[in-house]
Amino acid sequence: VSFWPGIRFGDEEHAARLARWTSAVADAGLDALVVSDERTTWHLTGFGTTAPLGSTARPRVLLLAADGSATFFVHESTARCVAEMLAPGIEVRGYAPLAAPVEELAGALRAHGAQRVGADLGGGLAPRLAPLDVAALERRAGRALEDASRLIWELRAVKSAAEVERIRRACQITTDAYAATFDAIRSGMTEAAMGRLMLDRLRELGADDGWVNCVSGRGEYDRVDGVPRERPVSDGELVFFDAGAKVGGYWADFSRAGVVGQPSRHQEEQQERVWHATCAGVDALRPGAKLAEVAGVLDAALADQGIAFNNKPGRYGHALGMEVTERPDVSGDDPGVVKAGMVLTIEPATLDDAGIYHCEQDVLVTDAGPEILSLCDWRLRALG
Amino acid sequence: VSFWPGIRFGDEEHAARLARWTSAVADAGLDALVVSDERTTWHLTGFGTTAPLGSTARPRVLLLAADGSATFFVHESTARCVAEMLAPGIEVRGYAPLAAPVEELAGALRAHGAQRVGADLGGGLAPRLAPLDVAALERRAGRALEDASRLIWELRAVKSAAEVERIRRACQITTDAYAATFDAIRSGMTEAAMGRLMLDRLRELGADDGWVNCVSGRGEYDRVDGVPRERPVSDGELVFFDAGAKVGGYWADFSRAGVVGQPSRHQEEQQERVWHATCAGVDALRPGAKLAEVAGVLDAALADQGIAFNNKPGRYGHALGMEVTERPDVSGDDPGVVKAGMVLTIEPATLDDAGIYHCEQDVLVTDAGPEILSLCDWRLRALG
Repeated sequence: VSFWPGIRFGDEEHAARLARWTSAVADAGLDALVVSDERTTWHLTGFGTTAPLGSTARPRVLLLAADGSATFFVHESTARCVAEMLAPGIEVRGYAPLAAPVEELAGALRAHGAQRVGADLGGGLAPRLAPLDVAALERRAGRALEDASRLIWELRAVKSAAEVERIRRACQITTDAYAATFDAIRSGMTEAAMGRLMLDRLRELGADDGWVNCVSGRGEYDRVDGVPRERPVSDGELVFFDAGAKVGGYWADFSRAGVVGQPSRHQEEQQERVWHATCAGVDALRPGAKLAEVAGVLDAALADQGIAFNNKPGRYGHALGMEVTERPDVSGDDPGVVKAGMVLTIEPATLDDAGIYHCEQDVLVTDAGPEILSLCDWRLRALG
Repeated sequence: VSFWPGIRFGDEEHAARLARWTSAVADAGLDALVVSDERTTWHLTGFGTTAPLGSTARPRVLLLAADGSATFFVHESTARCVAEMLAPGIEVRGYAPLAAPVEELAGALRAHGAQRVGADLGGGLAPRLAPLDVAALERRAGRALEDASRLIWELRAVKSAAEVERIRRACQITTDAYAATFDAIRSGMTEAAMGRLMLDRLRELGADDGWVNCVSGRGEYDRVDGVPRERPVSDGELVFFDAGAKVGGYWADFSRAGVVGQPSRHQEEQQERVWHATCAGVDALRPGAKLAEVAGVLDAALADQGIAFNNKPGRYGHALGMEVTERPDVSGDDPGVVKAGMVLTIEPATLDDAGIYHCEQDVLVTDAGPEILSLCDWRLRALG
């Protein structure tokens, strides 16, 4: 079982990450990069924490300079813990106030003579430096920060072999948990009970944590992302799960479904149509393809199958890793390009009164082509 | 077992919250309040999600106007789920782009003719509107946003009876999990195994989730907040836990400890000294007291006991609720006042080579005086 010690990667891995990032900072013409998004600082510094995310007491902020130096600003009460997990080549600097280390950062930027300073100002990241902190930092440092979220996502999007191993394991646990959960479902169970079953299986099978959505009910399949209800399922109802294990800080994210009793012919055909579209999207994930082109392939495949993309998620897929949804998106609006090492989901869908048909795949892009990590039968199971 | 359906409070509770908040917005002289911190929007709208926090895809933003109207901006793909959990008196408005609903918010602010607009711009909250989003909103709306984090924390700090019930239950589960964990610890177990024991007990006893820190080792007690290690404990070592159950979205947070074999006289005396200081702090939590005065009582109590507050957390305690650490702080720097309904931790501590001595209490402030929720023996257990 991977537990907390499993979240630290090896020193070589971390050294390679730091070198890659600091050279990207220099290549982007930046003198420094300020990062406070917790996943990104964990990715680079090696320091993860067992405290729940969300609270912003004592934020940790990483400063990468184009000259290759890296400084991690952390509250003095945690400096020792941070130091013992710290990746090589990074200096820890403790601060005392219970607030963002604005003075300390401003001083460091001045000391580096940094003119162009990038930061995670938004763009789908979750910076711990809030708008107020950024405004204060700009005032104290005497310079404006530029948004560097695109650069950060580009660097995070290409996974190392060690990262892929965690996602692969998370996918395997999710597959096994689906098998055990589908076996245990009986007519009359509630969404909440079925969701709990899946969550418990994920944890028992070795996930550090898991997330589960579970939807059922005639005419209610636009409830995906809803909270599972105390509502019993009955024969003929499609039970849709979207779920994933977390292993060493990395997520799986793929949906599977079954029907209480037996799937109807209509349900099976809808699922098969979506499956064909999904396969077309997966097959288009090759290095060099534009993400907008992959979205175009999916548009065409859905049209070929004669089904509407009517669940409105705003995209056909997304990157996956330390967050369940990362950037880039598989979308006509995304300017990005598919690269080897990316892990992306492909998830076209359609919904009607009898079900949501959505058999998401988690895919590793390789130079030899797409490799599916979510090795789990896409067909609707007969449940109960 | 409280599972997902348990996170929704009743309609009356929500109506009371909304009325209290909108009148506070008006009293503060604001025309509108924009809130994107996920805990705060859950608190007010009733909509929680099973998706892991962290990702900022499709942020949800609440707009409260001083005239009492409330609008919740959510991605169109989730509008139905949100609507079914929604508290009375709030309108849902779906948006389509995979980005913060800046245009929609700016339009609403203009439509309200809102001049003074508050927002959660920092101050220890975790707004989903990132610095870039706030800057864009200010541009589009043609007005600057004011930080309203103090107002938000003041409103969140006073808990309702229904909120207190969840924290009380989280504390009870944590107490029971400590008892089961301390019974099961044996010499030679690792920090990671002991941490896992506690986490598993929390979940088995009905917590939705839990958090656990576990520290041991001679001369290593400044490692609190560190990741538990694969390091076996041996006789005479103090095993320190800081942990809490999460129930219906609300946390417990209190530490307890034991010693493998038997505590030494020195360890017992240190723990007892800290206990006396803790009791003095708890006793000072009375409506009307300034938090800085409570901190002064703790300063004096530690001096009386002849022990140094040398673990450097930056405060003697903090508010507790939807986050493990909320504001206000029990600190000489906090300008706040103790009020009935607040739930605060009191946690003076001292550390030396043989242990960290810290027996945190979670306390509900009532008009009749402080009520301890963390009903769990403060003494060092004999383990193994």
